[in-house]
Amino acid sequence: MFSQSMYTLGTNRSCIRDLFEYGLQQAQTVGKENVFDFSLGNPSIPAPNAVRDAFSGLIEREDSLSVHGYTPAPGLFDARSAVADDLTDRFGFPIHPENLFFTCGAAPALTAAIRALAVENAEILAIAPFFPEYRPFVEHNGAAFAVVPADTDTFQIPVADVEAALTPHTQGIIVNSPNNPSGVVYTRGNLSALAALLTRKSQEYGHPIYILADEPYRELVYDGAEVPFLPAIYPHTIICYSYSKSLSLPGERIGYVCIPDCAADSRELLAAVAGASRILGHVCAPSLQQQVAAQCARVRPDLEAYDRNRRTLYDALTSYGYACVKPDGAFYLFVKAPGGDAQAFSDRAKKRNLLIVPGGDFGCPDFFRISTCVSHDMILRSLPVFQQLISETQV
Amino acid sequence: MFSQSMYTLGTNRSCIRDLFEYGLQQAQTVGKENVFDFSLGNPSIPAPNAVRDAFSGLIEREDSLSVHGYTPAPGLFDARSAVADDLTDRFGFPIHPENLFFTCGAAPALTAAIRALAVENAEILAIAPFFPEYRPFVEHNGAAFAVVPADTDTFQIPVADVEAALTPHTQGIIVNSPNNPSGVVYTRGNLSALAALLTRKSQEYGHPIYILADEPYRELVYDGAEVPFLPAIYPHTIICYSYSKSLSLPGERIGYVCIPDCAADSRELLAAVAGASRILGHVCAPSLQQQVAAQCARVRPDLEAYDRNRRTLYDALTSYGYACVKPDGAFYLFVKAPGGDAQAFSDRAKKRNLLIVPGGDFGCPDFFRISTCVSHDMILRSLPVFQQLISETQV
Repeated sequence: MFSQSMYTLGTNRSCIRDLFEYGLQQAQTVGKENVFDFSLGNPSIPAPNAVRDAFSGLIEREDSLSVHGYTPAPGLFDARSAVADDLTDRFGFPIHPENLFFTCGAAPALTAAIRALAVENAEILAIAPFFPEYRPFVEHNGAAFAVVPADTDTFQIPVADVEAALTPHTQGIIVNSPNNPSGVVYTRGNLSALAALLTRKSQEYGHPIYILADEPYRELVYDGAEVPFLPAIYPHTIICYSYSKSLSLPGERIGYVCIPDCAADSRELLAAVAGASRILGHVCAPSLQQQVAAQCARVRPDLEAYDRNRRTLYDALTSYGYACVKPDGAFYLFVKAPGGDAQAFSDRAKKRNLLIVPGGDFGCPDFFRISTCVSHDMILRSLPVFQQLISETQV
Repeated sequence: MFSQSMYTLGTNRSCIRDLFEYGLQQAQTVGKENVFDFSLGNPSIPAPNAVRDAFSGLIEREDSLSVHGYTPAPGLFDARSAVADDLTDRFGFPIHPENLFFTCGAAPALTAAIRALAVENAEILAIAPFFPEYRPFVEHNGAAFAVVPADTDTFQIPVADVEAALTPHTQGIIVNSPNNPSGVVYTRGNLSALAALLTRKSQEYGHPIYILADEPYRELVYDGAEVPFLPAIYPHTIICYSYSKSLSLPGERIGYVCIPDCAADSRELLAAVAGASRILGHVCAPSLQQQVAAQCARVRPDLEAYDRNRRTLYDALTSYGYACVKPDGAFYLFVKAPGGDAQAFSDRAKKRNLLIVPGGDFGCPDFFRISTCVSHDMILRSLPVFQQLISETQV
């Protein structure tokens, strides 16, 4: 006698993880150099030196009890101050330590925020393409999950389709920019149109519709692309942040929820996040990692390697005839599957040991995702396979 | 529009935290040396040197991507192996890496295990006195919470009262030994009687009743007291462990769920824990901390300071006339309040800047908890206040 729904969640592995583990197996058989694994979104550049220095300094020089002790549930005041100051300076928008609640990364930030919004009959929207875990996060934390279909020409937010999906029960809409899996950065104009819609509908419904801004890729942008600071465009914004990608610390589980003063019921909502965090078993974010985040609040990643990978793959694939919106951020390409069925195309690629993720779980079954956080050498070795696969499709 | 229940959980602060923060304030007014704060269960001995060396070595010598990368959801295989080997060697009972699922400490271990057991109408029992967070953990993760009243003479498990509290819906019973707040270690005889009852009732109900063994204090015992390894006494045991106390790493959020092969549906239940962990937003336990746990699986704490505190306080308080079961473990004393009302007694103590936790939230309103993880000097300074308080009550 155990929960069947939890068992199903624990055994229905994501196709991403299946591909990744298949790749590890195949490497044993055909050699590592003959497997082209573009499945995982695991950073491939090391953490900045400042991060290493911060870890070392804390371990070597600080008192064990203060480094490793329980922190207040929202996080160390110094860590919240450092992040608040950085956000305020960068975006010219007032963020205070009291607006921040540290978490074990973006996943607990999102689940706590969803649970805090989960009033009776609550609905949370996501915009395709979207990170597949949003669905279980929402459905098992007290809300219904609804999807706005993708604008597959641009992968910007299709505002008219968002309007069609809104109901009086809509409590929030997840906005993930730079986007996983498309790599697209929503433009200021696009976000302003969304904000205008949400403002109008919030008035109509008599309660705020919150934006849940899932922003682990905020600092991963190329060609000078702008990631607008959402609270400056739409007041009712809940930022869910992680240092996983920006500081290459995915396993270290450190991030935060930020609800600025301009959001409706800002402090009450952050208290509800604290309550949700409590019953989700979070207690506090890792103390050592909080202190590293405090010291590294102004550290930015060196994106040269990701940018080079992005350009190499984008230029090569489009030259072969693949269709793909050029990504301005994150470390993914979201490519239209030749032949139209990304699952079938991914299966064919898999036979050549080229591992790409079909887009069905992202809400776009005609597209596949390539992670560009890989070695440049592997990219170069993989290009003939990409070329061959599309040429075979066209025959 | 936000969840009122989450808001209430986020704002109804525990009286422990209130006392602690009152103490910080009073220290500003009357001087730190005149505040006697016995409120928090925060380790007061530093992490063992081996822990510091492990952190340093990983940061200084290992590759950033492998130290800080995502780990598999259940944890690094090496970490699970190290812990499994240590448990097998120590307790002569076979534990395999596949029985372990690393978590961000005991709280997410418990919440995931509860959620995994939360079938329709599920009930989870706790035995007074109990850690107050059990209640929200159970009530907000899909089960009903029921309390077995304390045997206040011994604070052992009152097995007849457990039997009276069991129903066909009972899915689990939380067993916390060494116990917070009593410091009592359940004896082998007591646990065997519980096991016999649960075996009989599991047969009667046609499904296993699991023991949820919350064991953060497992290694904190004195005078050679034995903490029996529960799976060897009762097969359907789910161990929820944390390194918070044993390695003085409470803020670092590292622990595990262990479900041995002998438990009914062992692997399926661990898969359900994995599913629950996923929707609770856990992702994986901090990677660096997992690797420290792997290296320090056989490191044990030096308990001399806690033991000295325990003896000093127990001897002094009983000599003044306080009644208290002598604790064999953890770092607490649970003392009968002179006059019978622990809240009133705690309020009187607070006026003398002596901060002790009334036992109402632990399920024993006639007792108060003293944390002995404090400085010995503070204990010595506090003794006249304890003496005065009981002498005033007797007048």
